[in-house]
Amino acid sequence: MFKFELIKESKECKARLGKIRTPHGDIETPIFMPVGTKATVKAMTPGEMKELEAQIILGNTYHLYLRPGHELIKEAGGLHKFMNWDGPILTDSGGFQVFSLGDLRRIKEEGVEFRSHIDGSKHFISPEKAIEIQNYLGSDIMMVFDECAPYPASYEYVKNSMERTTRWAKRCKDHHKNTESQALFGIVQGGMYKDLRIESAKQITDIGFPGYAIGGLSVGEPRDLMCEVLDYTVDYLPKGKPRYLMGVGSPDYLFEAVERGIDMADCVLPTRIARHGAFMTSKGQITIKNAKFRKDFKPIDENCQCYTCKNYSRAYIRHLFREKEILGARLATIHNLFFLINLMKSIRISIMENNFINFKKEFYKNYGY
Amino acid sequence: MFKFELIKESKECKARLGKIRTPHGDIETPIFMPVGTKATVKAMTPGEMKELEAQIILGNTYHLYLRPGHELIKEAGGLHKFMNWDGPILTDSGGFQVFSLGDLRRIKEEGVEFRSHIDGSKHFISPEKAIEIQNYLGSDIMMVFDECAPYPASYEYVKNSMERTTRWAKRCKDHHKNTESQALFGIVQGGMYKDLRIESAKQITDIGFPGYAIGGLSVGEPRDLMCEVLDYTVDYLPKGKPRYLMGVGSPDYLFEAVERGIDMADCVLPTRIARHGAFMTSKGQITIKNAKFRKDFKPIDENCQCYTCKNYSRAYIRHLFREKEILGARLATIHNLFFLINLMKSIRISIMENNFINFKKEFYKNYGY
Repeated sequence: MFKFELIKESKECKARLGKIRTPHGDIETPIFMPVGTKATVKAMTPGEMKELEAQIILGNTYHLYLRPGHELIKEAGGLHKFMNWDGPILTDSGGFQVFSLGDLRRIKEEGVEFRSHIDGSKHFISPEKAIEIQNYLGSDIMMVFDECAPYPASYEYVKNSMERTTRWAKRCKDHHKNTESQALFGIVQGGMYKDLRIESAKQITDIGFPGYAIGGLSVGEPRDLMCEVLDYTVDYLPKGKPRYLMGVGSPDYLFEAVERGIDMADCVLPTRIARHGAFMTSKGQITIKNAKFRKDFKPIDENCQCYTCKNYSRAYIRHLFREKEILGARLATIHNLFFLINLMKSIRISIMENNFINFKKEFYKNYGY
Repeated sequence: MFKFELIKESKECKARLGKIRTPHGDIETPIFMPVGTKATVKAMTPGEMKELEAQIILGNTYHLYLRPGHELIKEAGGLHKFMNWDGPILTDSGGFQVFSLGDLRRIKEEGVEFRSHIDGSKHFISPEKAIEIQNYLGSDIMMVFDECAPYPASYEYVKNSMERTTRWAKRCKDHHKNTESQALFGIVQGGMYKDLRIESAKQITDIGFPGYAIGGLSVGEPRDLMCEVLDYTVDYLPKGKPRYLMGVGSPDYLFEAVERGIDMADCVLPTRIARHGAFMTSKGQITIKNAKFRKDFKPIDENCQCYTCKNYSRAYIRHLFREKEILGARLATIHNLFFLINLMKSIRISIMENNFINFKKEFYKNYGY
């Protein structure tokens, strides 16, 4: 049921066009995937996500495992039915969140012992458990349980962590039950070390998965360093499988990733900054609470065709944010998701027309990068 | 441009059917009016309010005067345009909120001096100022600046307050500029004292307004006492004008008011309790955070046709509220407003069919009153 079709390779760079077939619908790549951490894209209904032409959304295994629990979601008929979203869903493995718990977790070869950030209760997630949870959730694309090494980290730490990630990836693949309806992606780690990245890519592709993610980037390193790692890592991934860069969602990071052959990316960035009143526009990011927008009756972005820009002024939206009105978070989320989804559409067109590099240059100039 | 048409008087009680014509559309009465305090019905878009068949919404003068300011709203083209709602709007006078400030305000014959609850800044609202603000907002129905006496209050206090309310009502009428496009309603006060209520009704109707409100009820008194006051007060209001009971929004209060000849009512109740996870259903009110709903995959109300009930389970909505997800507040607000708007529609049909009393009895039995 899962299939990746490579439609076109750019003549200008490594950018490419593709299509992913999943049991819940097709996805055109390169794609930005909005995040719905706790079985809801914050502030949005599934119907609104459809109107925005979101083709796939994410769910977070760690959060859903703790609350409401994967057994409950299975009983509800799976994550799609529980949250009323009938399009494709990708779930992460919970690894990233568990490792982010810092002092609350302990890594062993068998898996990770941790305490819930909500109530301190004790839990244990192994590669097998992460797969079982995702099988219960019923996502279209699942991720192996990996360790995302921090930045900066020593060569030795990253090497050990990368090798364990490989061993865990094997265990994940062995334990995966629903290979027919759920595609399991491998994850390449290796920090910012070239030989480790290449070694990881070789080991993970040797195991063999229907898609490959690059983890451990966009974790605080400079943009140039991320680009450098992408430059050599992508070459070790097969052309016939989708490539997913985890945790990237600012316009420039998306451009840089696509240019280097990335097909998929996700991030909470557009929805999170939206709830703080920050808007991505064709002329750069604006913070609506700024006093200069008090009597500004223009839309957020005069070039934007989203519901927010077609119906509301900056002055009104500023008022909503000052008053902490829910509608403010809604209008901002709609706008930022529309902006990124539309940006990716324009990027796909530019690849089709062999105009990607020029399009990127123009965008950077207007955005103020 | 403002007109009230009395369509039918019930044979069973004082209930009646009517139609109000405003510059922004017609309103079928009896009607429940959702409240959009700060230029937004909390958590909702205007489009969603239309889908719910809300025929009129409220705005609060006190809040809009302080933020974003009535001058700014005028500059934006008025409240309708500012908030993107093209249906009828009713604004209160700010009186109720100002008097609720307690120690922060001082009442004089000229008006009320008060400090903002936001930043402590000093302000003064007179009857003339309240009218000027509402003229700037451009609402279809405006209210006179009155004093809503607390409950309980002494006979002397209420008498003085009622008489001042009459003097202020005259000043409001004299100062009102846009009589063509904005209808100004008078307000009857008088607390729980029969002779004062009757005297107030006489004085206010003597001044003459296109509609009359009853203020100072549903302020903490028992339901029977409210009913008693309504019983005698309504008789002193002319049949040919709409009657508006301020601050009422629970199903039973709405039934009792309609039975006694009330045409309009408003309250934050359905939207406020929604944001705390309380749902009005055909079988009474439920609190969704209750543990018994954890694995309840039924809709909130099996008899309900709203978006929330057609698409989501109690288990999912409970999860959203536990996680403080914005979608929870949205789904609850949609449901409660749908419930009350639909209830009023059913009440209108029952009046049309001379079946109001029976309908009320059935509803009370199922709701658990």
